[in-house]
Amino acid sequence: MSALKPNSTIGILGGGQLGRMLSVAASRLGLKTHIYEPSANPPAGQVADQVTTASYDDQDGLAAFAKAVDVITFEFENVPTSALDQLEKSRAIFPPRRALATSQDRLLEKTFLQENGIPVAAFANIEGPEDWTEAQSKIGTHSILKTRRFGYDGKGQVRLSSLEDPSQAWDMIDNTPAVLEEMIDFNCEISVIGARDQSGRITCYEAGENVHKDGILDTTTLPASLPRNLIQDAILITGKILNALDYVGVIGVEFFATKQGLLVNEFAPRVHNSGHWTQDACLIDQFEQHIRAIAGWPLGDGTRHSDVVMTNLIGADVEAIEAISQDSHAAIHLYGKAEVKPGRKMGHVNKITPKSA
Amino acid sequence: MSALKPNSTIGILGGGQLGRMLSVAASRLGLKTHIYEPSANPPAGQVADQVTTASYDDQDGLAAFAKAVDVITFEFENVPTSALDQLEKSRAIFPPRRALATSQDRLLEKTFLQENGIPVAAFANIEGPEDWTEAQSKIGTHSILKTRRFGYDGKGQVRLSSLEDPSQAWDMIDNTPAVLEEMIDFNCEISVIGARDQSGRITCYEAGENVHKDGILDTTTLPASLPRNLIQDAILITGKILNALDYVGVIGVEFFATKQGLLVNEFAPRVHNSGHWTQDACLIDQFEQHIRAIAGWPLGDGTRHSDVVMTNLIGADVEAIEAISQDSHAAIHLYGKAEVKPGRKMGHVNKITPKSA
Repeated sequence: MSALKPNSTIGILGGGQLGRMLSVAASRLGLKTHIYEPSANPPAGQVADQVTTASYDDQDGLAAFAKAVDVITFEFENVPTSALDQLEKSRAIFPPRRALATSQDRLLEKTFLQENGIPVAAFANIEGPEDWTEAQSKIGTHSILKTRRFGYDGKGQVRLSSLEDPSQAWDMIDNTPAVLEEMIDFNCEISVIGARDQSGRITCYEAGENVHKDGILDTTTLPASLPRNLIQDAILITGKILNALDYVGVIGVEFFATKQGLLVNEFAPRVHNSGHWTQDACLIDQFEQHIRAIAGWPLGDGTRHSDVVMTNLIGADVEAIEAISQDSHAAIHLYGKAEVKPGRKMGHVNKITPKSA
Repeated sequence: MSALKPNSTIGILGGGQLGRMLSVAASRLGLKTHIYEPSANPPAGQVADQVTTASYDDQDGLAAFAKAVDVITFEFENVPTSALDQLEKSRAIFPPRRALATSQDRLLEKTFLQENGIPVAAFANIEGPEDWTEAQSKIGTHSILKTRRFGYDGKGQVRLSSLEDPSQAWDMIDNTPAVLEEMIDFNCEISVIGARDQSGRITCYEAGENVHKDGILDTTTLPASLPRNLIQDAILITGKILNALDYVGVIGVEFFATKQGLLVNEFAPRVHNSGHWTQDACLIDQFEQHIRAIAGWPLGDGTRHSDVVMTNLIGADVEAIEAISQDSHAAIHLYGKAEVKPGRKMGHVNKITPKSA
């Protein structure tokens, strides 16, 4: 695909905060966005040129959307396959379908990583009751059971070590297809935001250190408290994944840093919460990098110019915004969500300090 | 006025590129924008929550707009007084009307500056034929005649020294009320973008050095090639102007740097083209600073973290965008204007390099 001209339109499936920040990035490049979202008044709609409110099985809605845009991307990973099949007939979709399909299924994802020589935690596939006993004996109770699909923010996960009777675990996730994974004693979790353009050129942001709270990302800190060689390794592995998937766009790759080195936990085929720090500590942020890649433009410079701590504002956290705004070095990003709910991502803050290392 | 809560709405009079970039900045703070603009499909409409397409003498349109927003600002200085009178009855307007009225009239502006002890070039008021001879004899032919109102980008100006018969000058501007100004032999032109919040706190960005081409700003460069004491002086004068006007919001002040020191050329009561560099070289840019001020929020940090050259893309300049995008350190900002016209501002580029001084 040749580079989209200014005033072209990017179609985005999903209208949450990621779509909102993608729309803002697109506007800088003179590109319009058109949001497709089933629920009314999506956060992205406030800054997008067009919004279609329609379900993912509305064939007329999808057809009109495809006709109105020049290229399609997604900020929401659980778009039904049938919708993507229809859209793909008339418009290019980036990142590629294969990356989406792989990341949506934890078994496919771990198998893909393993086949590409990328280190992952030991895992066992659980499709039926006959797999459960074998998996337990192979992986042990220092392990975590995860549904293959639709898990996010710690949902669909059970720690076997926390149960009196580990054989209950599979019942707790309704006996759905799952993966039993060795529990990793990691020093810290890091993630790398990588990007690959349509000519196959790759650029990665520096690895950030993530801390979760109640299963949801709480902070990402740069620089990470890790040896430089591990940070380099994380970038090399991210590049390997991008090439293996013939990827176009931005990817978020999560790693466990262990005594034995890095293990990949998972990847997300989209802009990623752990990359929000790039908005205020880099010239070109992850959102613009994604838009550049899918629009067929060259990637921009993502060198980190400042130290930064990104803190998510979850639920009622956002009520402290007046106090937060008193700190002149805190860059505030709110998502325009009308209602505060527990566990809901309402915004984030990038606290910036001069670069130390 | 107390601080606007997230999800409040900022009303913006004018839908050009300044309104567009103000809308993007507002979205970061979780604020919506509503654009009021007489012409259809304004650039700002692509990233605003609401757009009203109506003329400035449409009283119903103005009334509905005022009702739909929480505070009003403008990106366009020539909004008719009658429209502002009507809007002001129901909503606060920032920056204050007095700043707008002063800057709209070159005579009021120069008189205001002079009365506040701020150095300006020698000038004479021309209201009728009887003033012309006296002004010419006082200021001389090394001078420039400027209409009192509606001048921008070099329009409404005549250099007397370029005419065989200087007495033609006033005819060339249709004998409209004007100011004859001493032509200044300046070393360079600089500008300061300043901001003042609702508690009277002031912050200024570092002075940038401006170069014009065909009467239109071409580049702004930071750092400016000026002694530090003059850069400090420019900031102090900007602060004086902000206080004298009891200002709220962002102002752009243009200076001539001469052998004898600084002279103020003019100020604009809004975000300013010569402040576009702040988007990529500061944590909080001029657009967000303006939104913070008018929304009753505290100002953010505007320290410059990088060297930068901002270059305007005027008319057909924008056709080079594919070549420009190859430079990964060039941050691109396009305005979403459908049609390229000579002299039209289509976008700008901030070329970033590590901070030298």
